[in-house]
Amino acid sequence: MRVPILGTAAGIERYLLELGTITEFPDRAGVTRRLYTEAWQKAQIMIYELMCAAGLEAWMDEVGNVHGRLQGSSDQTILTGSHFDTVVDGGAYDGAYGIIAGIVALSELKARQVPLHRSLEVVAFSEEEGSRFPLTCWGSRALVGKIDTEAMLLCDSQGISLNDAMRSVGLNPSRAHPRRSYDYQGFVELHVEQGSQLEERRKPIGIVGTIFGQERWIVRVRGESAHAGTTRMARRHDALVAASEMVMAVYRLSQNNEAHAIATVGLLQVHHGTANCVPGHVTFTVDLRSAHDEIRRNLALQLRQDFKESGIRHGVEVVAEKHTDTAAVSMSSHLQHLTRDVAENLELDTLFLDSRAGHDAQILGREMPAGMIFVPSHQGISHHAREFTSARDLANGERVLRNVLERAANNRYSEDGGG
Amino acid sequence: MRVPILGTAAGIERYLLELGTITEFPDRAGVTRRLYTEAWQKAQIMIYELMCAAGLEAWMDEVGNVHGRLQGSSDQTILTGSHFDTVVDGGAYDGAYGIIAGIVALSELKARQVPLHRSLEVVAFSEEEGSRFPLTCWGSRALVGKIDTEAMLLCDSQGISLNDAMRSVGLNPSRAHPRRSYDYQGFVELHVEQGSQLEERRKPIGIVGTIFGQERWIVRVRGESAHAGTTRMARRHDALVAASEMVMAVYRLSQNNEAHAIATVGLLQVHHGTANCVPGHVTFTVDLRSAHDEIRRNLALQLRQDFKESGIRHGVEVVAEKHTDTAAVSMSSHLQHLTRDVAENLELDTLFLDSRAGHDAQILGREMPAGMIFVPSHQGISHHAREFTSARDLANGERVLRNVLERAANNRYSEDGGG
Repeated sequence: MRVPILGTAAGIERYLLELGTITEFPDRAGVTRRLYTEAWQKAQIMIYELMCAAGLEAWMDEVGNVHGRLQGSSDQTILTGSHFDTVVDGGAYDGAYGIIAGIVALSELKARQVPLHRSLEVVAFSEEEGSRFPLTCWGSRALVGKIDTEAMLLCDSQGISLNDAMRSVGLNPSRAHPRRSYDYQGFVELHVEQGSQLEERRKPIGIVGTIFGQERWIVRVRGESAHAGTTRMARRHDALVAASEMVMAVYRLSQNNEAHAIATVGLLQVHHGTANCVPGHVTFTVDLRSAHDEIRRNLALQLRQDFKESGIRHGVEVVAEKHTDTAAVSMSSHLQHLTRDVAENLELDTLFLDSRAGHDAQILGREMPAGMIFVPSHQGISHHAREFTSARDLANGERVLRNVLERAANNRYSEDGGG
Repeated sequence: MRVPILGTAAGIERYLLELGTITEFPDRAGVTRRLYTEAWQKAQIMIYELMCAAGLEAWMDEVGNVHGRLQGSSDQTILTGSHFDTVVDGGAYDGAYGIIAGIVALSELKARQVPLHRSLEVVAFSEEEGSRFPLTCWGSRALVGKIDTEAMLLCDSQGISLNDAMRSVGLNPSRAHPRRSYDYQGFVELHVEQGSQLEERRKPIGIVGTIFGQERWIVRVRGESAHAGTTRMARRHDALVAASEMVMAVYRLSQNNEAHAIATVGLLQVHHGTANCVPGHVTFTVDLRSAHDEIRRNLALQLRQDFKESGIRHGVEVVAEKHTDTAAVSMSSHLQHLTRDVAENLELDTLFLDSRAGHDAQILGREMPAGMIFVPSHQGISHHAREFTSARDLANGERVLRNVLERAANNRYSEDGGG
């Protein structure tokens, strides 16, 4: 049997680092747990066991989310949690922290026999990062019944469909729409900031106002493969030169609009390339985010125009296909104020800020009041093996989360005001 | 038995297309015959049988080159030929044409019982393209004893060593330095242009002055992988943005110096990239060619300076490693003049031009007088399934080659002048 979970700094860090050893590539720095891989399944089982050890009613749902429930006097339920998948070579804190801290918080409330009107439930979401299939927030979308059965046909880079990946871990794809067993009335997600604002301003607690909207594109550039020695510049249809110009266009757009938006090319592939051939076929991704959907739409139009002009200039065909579009979402103002009150009572300074990263709270925030609490990320490093948050900051976040959950479970609250 | 080979347009085209059906990927357009594959071995056997059917003394040497000899009254020998390996998804003419036309030419001279002082020998070189191992002109380098035993350890993309690949086709790697059986005194290579100058100027015969020197680099760009949403532009060390700027620098350098040089980035890889991460590690290739080694060295310095500045601008480390450096080689002026005389006698217009592609003549040209004859490539397309030269142009090339070989075999000639 596991030792009892304690809400101490050392306890949270210990379980986080233990979870962080479960990775697809044990010989590489960082953590890689992509959806429905063997490492993912090991992490799922560890989380389930932790929930059981913490005395929560635990179960796995139809898409692999893990639930741990602390029943109150009502079936009305306040949710917390985050995701346990990772990017490739990511860190040990992103996602995992919100799960472990949620389990610790509920375990503490149970141990102290705190009376609860509403029930509390911590959910470990199966997927949020989009690091295996071209979809994001699969776990939270499934929880609110917002998944598309066509997604089952999506394939990873090895050509394995989501459908087959689910079967490989014992899930039944035809039952991927989980029933909503309880009356979910709110969601509070605790997460590392993944930026450097809290550390720079020496604030232990961040309260999120808006989660940036984001869209992702796959851009296909088709020119003509040709001999690198004999093909004159004027006769070339060089897909890589055109794509490189487009990467620079994304970079400039992001530089010029950083106050409201940010854009990145994360992946670029030259297909059938060799050193002595002019590249004929290139694909790359675009990730574009903004707090304002209108600004994002305008920047997307501007990029499409830039891409079109590069295509004409280099005699290549350009097709930019958007495969993800998630609107910006404002967090519940009530939960923002409640979080500030709780932090002030605990004598922890707060900073109101936006989230430029996507989160499960973005999906749940459209269906119910949602709030997000951030703790500092050292040097803002994230999606990297060197992601780090101190044990003290981890513990502060859990204390705030625990108190927010307790008050949300017992107070009357609504979008319009105080409770 | 095969039908006798005739030096007609239809005959050369027929054997070329037959050889072109021997490919690693029969269900793909184009021809793929990489060194020491099963397809390569089938082609080797077909060429050997053709030489025998043409009445030549035929043998395979220690690296798999196929020789077909027509003995004159002296052991002094004039060589012709080209390579029978191909790039991936290449054309049926590149390399193969010089072999088939060489066999046809020697067969014709034999059939007509033309008296020869020097002997003539057609060689089908085992490898020139560098499409399997990171080496080029393996066959011609071996013929002149210029191979490095360390090359045996080079591996293909599957991790198979050159040593093991040789054994797989029955060759003994420890005997890879062929003895030079005869006194080789000159080499004439007939090849498709792979460019569009002859077609554009309506010249059936090209005479090569210089084969461009070339160098190849692998450039490693190391920045820092980071979260695409939360990492501010000023904090990014984006390896792909830096690499894209370098691709554009290569492009501009090539545009601005096209009269003397040409440069290409054929391959670029983002390592461990995902759509929502700032890329931390990118590698790409540079292929730089010029007729003048001094100009090439200066352009390389300029590129290195551009790369260094991009590295500083984007806070990334840049290491550019040169792995191939082949000097420009001038063709024998005597053989150039002889070729023009022969073509004029046949009433075929000629164009003097440089070769921007590498060739076996570049290797042999350092050891003996060498000449290259080009025939038009339709639209300049090469290294592609749509590579094409008309049967008439193929036949013209063979007629010029045959007459050049006959005169070189019977005339006194030297680098300094006439014959």
